[in-house]
Amino acid sequence: MEPYELTLSAAAEAIRTGELSPVDLTDSVLARVEQVDPHVRAYVTVVADGARQEAKEAEREISATGPRGPLHGIPMALKDLIDVEGLPTTASSKVRDGHRASADSAVAARLSQAGAVLLGKTHTHEFAYGLTTPQTRNAWDQGRVAGGSSGGSAVAVATGSATFALGTDTGGSIRVPSALNGVVGLKPTYGLVPRSGVTSLSWSLDHVGTVTRSVQDAATVLEALAGPDPRDPASLPRTASARYTPGAEGDLSGMRIGVPRNYYFDQVEPDVEEAIRGAIDALRDLGAELVDVEIPMTRYIQAIQWGLMVPEASAYHEQTLRTTPELYAGDVRILLEAGELALAGDYLRAQRARTLMRDRWLELFAHVDIIAAPSVPAPAAPSGQESIRWTDGSLEAVSDAYVRLSAPANITGIPALTVPAGRDRAGLPIGMQLLGRPLGEADVLRVGAAHEQVASFGRGRIAPAVAA
Amino acid sequence: MEPYELTLSAAAEAIRTGELSPVDLTDSVLARVEQVDPHVRAYVTVVADGARQEAKEAEREISATGPRGPLHGIPMALKDLIDVEGLPTTASSKVRDGHRASADSAVAARLSQAGAVLLGKTHTHEFAYGLTTPQTRNAWDQGRVAGGSSGGSAVAVATGSATFALGTDTGGSIRVPSALNGVVGLKPTYGLVPRSGVTSLSWSLDHVGTVTRSVQDAATVLEALAGPDPRDPASLPRTASARYTPGAEGDLSGMRIGVPRNYYFDQVEPDVEEAIRGAIDALRDLGAELVDVEIPMTRYIQAIQWGLMVPEASAYHEQTLRTTPELYAGDVRILLEAGELALAGDYLRAQRARTLMRDRWLELFAHVDIIAAPSVPAPAAPSGQESIRWTDGSLEAVSDAYVRLSAPANITGIPALTVPAGRDRAGLPIGMQLLGRPLGEADVLRVGAAHEQVASFGRGRIAPAVAA
Repeated sequence: MEPYELTLSAAAEAIRTGELSPVDLTDSVLARVEQVDPHVRAYVTVVADGARQEAKEAEREISATGPRGPLHGIPMALKDLIDVEGLPTTASSKVRDGHRASADSAVAARLSQAGAVLLGKTHTHEFAYGLTTPQTRNAWDQGRVAGGSSGGSAVAVATGSATFALGTDTGGSIRVPSALNGVVGLKPTYGLVPRSGVTSLSWSLDHVGTVTRSVQDAATVLEALAGPDPRDPASLPRTASARYTPGAEGDLSGMRIGVPRNYYFDQVEPDVEEAIRGAIDALRDLGAELVDVEIPMTRYIQAIQWGLMVPEASAYHEQTLRTTPELYAGDVRILLEAGELALAGDYLRAQRARTLMRDRWLELFAHVDIIAAPSVPAPAAPSGQESIRWTDGSLEAVSDAYVRLSAPANITGIPALTVPAGRDRAGLPIGMQLLGRPLGEADVLRVGAAHEQVASFGRGRIAPAVAA
Repeated sequence: MEPYELTLSAAAEAIRTGELSPVDLTDSVLARVEQVDPHVRAYVTVVADGARQEAKEAEREISATGPRGPLHGIPMALKDLIDVEGLPTTASSKVRDGHRASADSAVAARLSQAGAVLLGKTHTHEFAYGLTTPQTRNAWDQGRVAGGSSGGSAVAVATGSATFALGTDTGGSIRVPSALNGVVGLKPTYGLVPRSGVTSLSWSLDHVGTVTRSVQDAATVLEALAGPDPRDPASLPRTASARYTPGAEGDLSGMRIGVPRNYYFDQVEPDVEEAIRGAIDALRDLGAELVDVEIPMTRYIQAIQWGLMVPEASAYHEQTLRTTPELYAGDVRILLEAGELALAGDYLRAQRARTLMRDRWLELFAHVDIIAAPSVPAPAAPSGQESIRWTDGSLEAVSDAYVRLSAPANITGIPALTVPAGRDRAGLPIGMQLLGRPLGEADVLRVGAAHEQVASFGRGRIAPAVAA
């Protein structure tokens, strides 16, 4: 097994015991990047020299005084919306030509403090305003979309081109590409991980989170990222426990898992439904009690998500939309210009409906600890395919389908994890979504880890990253 | 001295010792209402029979087991935006014809639980959307405005027609009429007192607070009102201390009081400036350290206040504005219809600017505990006068002038108290505003109480309520 194939946890353990050096690990991952990135284009920028330098420093410090923690000497990638001092934050956009970040974002600073090694910046759908990441190709089939907007991060982790990565999620942008590439994606509770120094799409829906190859790895990275930041107005105060690592037992006795009787299994491909229902049955076999739940206010989900996101995105881009509109890609520019016409009354209707929806979801969590559902209703679509035809004959835009099952966790701010849960008959990954109550990350990760132990997809699997 | 002249604290003490019965107190206040309300029109509705009934029940319970607390048996009035089960909440508007509240608002329920006796509902500028309360007359000069929008509550308390009252404050609506009628008005920290069951003007700026004839009384009522309510989405979690009663010592040693070098003394009538500077000097004589402060981002205050309020108000009135626009008064209808045209981008600009302004104000409170300033730049204007001419020749609408010094505490959510601080040469009351850090009510009330002990205006003074 090559070092690039190791999960973060396995690599950290090997570094801790001296079996693996951060330099060898980083070299192995950089060699993998060189091998596969020309095919999948996960990276905007690779900082190979900088990474080797940081790995050497980590190695020196670890030899002298031991590792600072599990991220010390681990090579990772950041979605290119996340500022790193001295590097451009391109947001995969021409609008950012010549940009250079003057300071680290809060999350980059926390990872740097933990000793993680920066490999480079990964592609996003331009300014995170889309669900496909057209520059990047799916790790399992280069003729298919990576998903987005954190497509680069998901593909980098899926192909072994980073041991872990960070992404952002405003309407599914961590969970969608993670599910479509067979990796673990965590969108934490709104306000738990600070967003200062991260380019905003829609500040009332934006989250920073993790992309990893195991649930344990997600917990490890979250422990380094979580905590208050006075520069993010939505940042939550410190919580009692900041430990997220799941136990090894895999026993789910006493855990009540909600199974939606509406919405989450409507308009879902048969292979996806079968895989998720099988995975949920396996959770019951591990001791969880399954509880039927009715998802509330579903006819308002899309209106709230778009009603908040579109005006907030346009407000953020106000200046450059006026000065250099031609630098945006066509799909993004149309959305941004449409948002300038939105009425305050419509935005406020979405805000008020969100408050009601959040209350109704919190009532659900009086009866269950977790809700289990598909992450995305269909596996990765062929690149260029604009819509999905459902069995009832209806057509749905690919991006609408990809946002549909993710949006509730953005609107309500609850934590949501996607874990690999099988493959469809074409071999494409399928993701199961686990949603928890606010600050219920420990429960979400506990169920995810238990699932992972029995799932057929296998933990830490590396995608081939060659044409199918 | 008649019972209606007693402050809440004095009345509560007399009830506790058995010198005064709730029935006699209520009868005295009701007689005063009968005497003065035809002249000042503070009340929309007086529930004399209900009040006498409640007073009798209070008397019976107090005789048997003693008072529940300091509000037990105390007659009070509620601004007619505050729901009381079975009574109409008219909002002083024809739009509410035939209305009847199906449940108590959170604050009405808390006062009822504390044993307070409801006298009736007081006039508001229609739906709280204005600063004059045209139905009501100033307690000191019936040719002048009461101020608003809680004009009825302020005039009721000023004239002895209620021992205390509640109001609401979105842009000064407690502080403005309190200052103009020579009583104490407290707008607490945003989220400290629940607003469920209270008609909204602009939910991100709305506060419920108190109108009393002493600072101690404000603290007593606040203790009954403060605390979380799951039905108000902005409600804050329970705070460590819910004690607000100021000590009797009046020594302000160690207290740093900020004196604004900009904004709060610009365009202020000379009598007002002189009274407030004198009151501030008196605070220094009590041991406080005076600190020069620069008020931040002042050129954005008006834009933020109106940019938030106007669209939120129109969103709240959306339905009735469509079905029965002719039932609104002309001034309110114009504002509501204008708000329907507001763009989401403009609203969001105001929201984002508010976040910055709040941060900048919080920085101020690293250096001072309290900021002292005028509450209103001029005493009560003659009814019908639309604008104020300043010494530099500029004209300002009366309502703009009245909002100007109040708005910062609504935008930032910080607590703000107005206390009587003298009279102008025409004998009209002048108010001093004391602003504190979030949840700093105890400090604000401590300084207010110390001021009151040395102020020439005198605590608990009753307005004549006769034509000047």
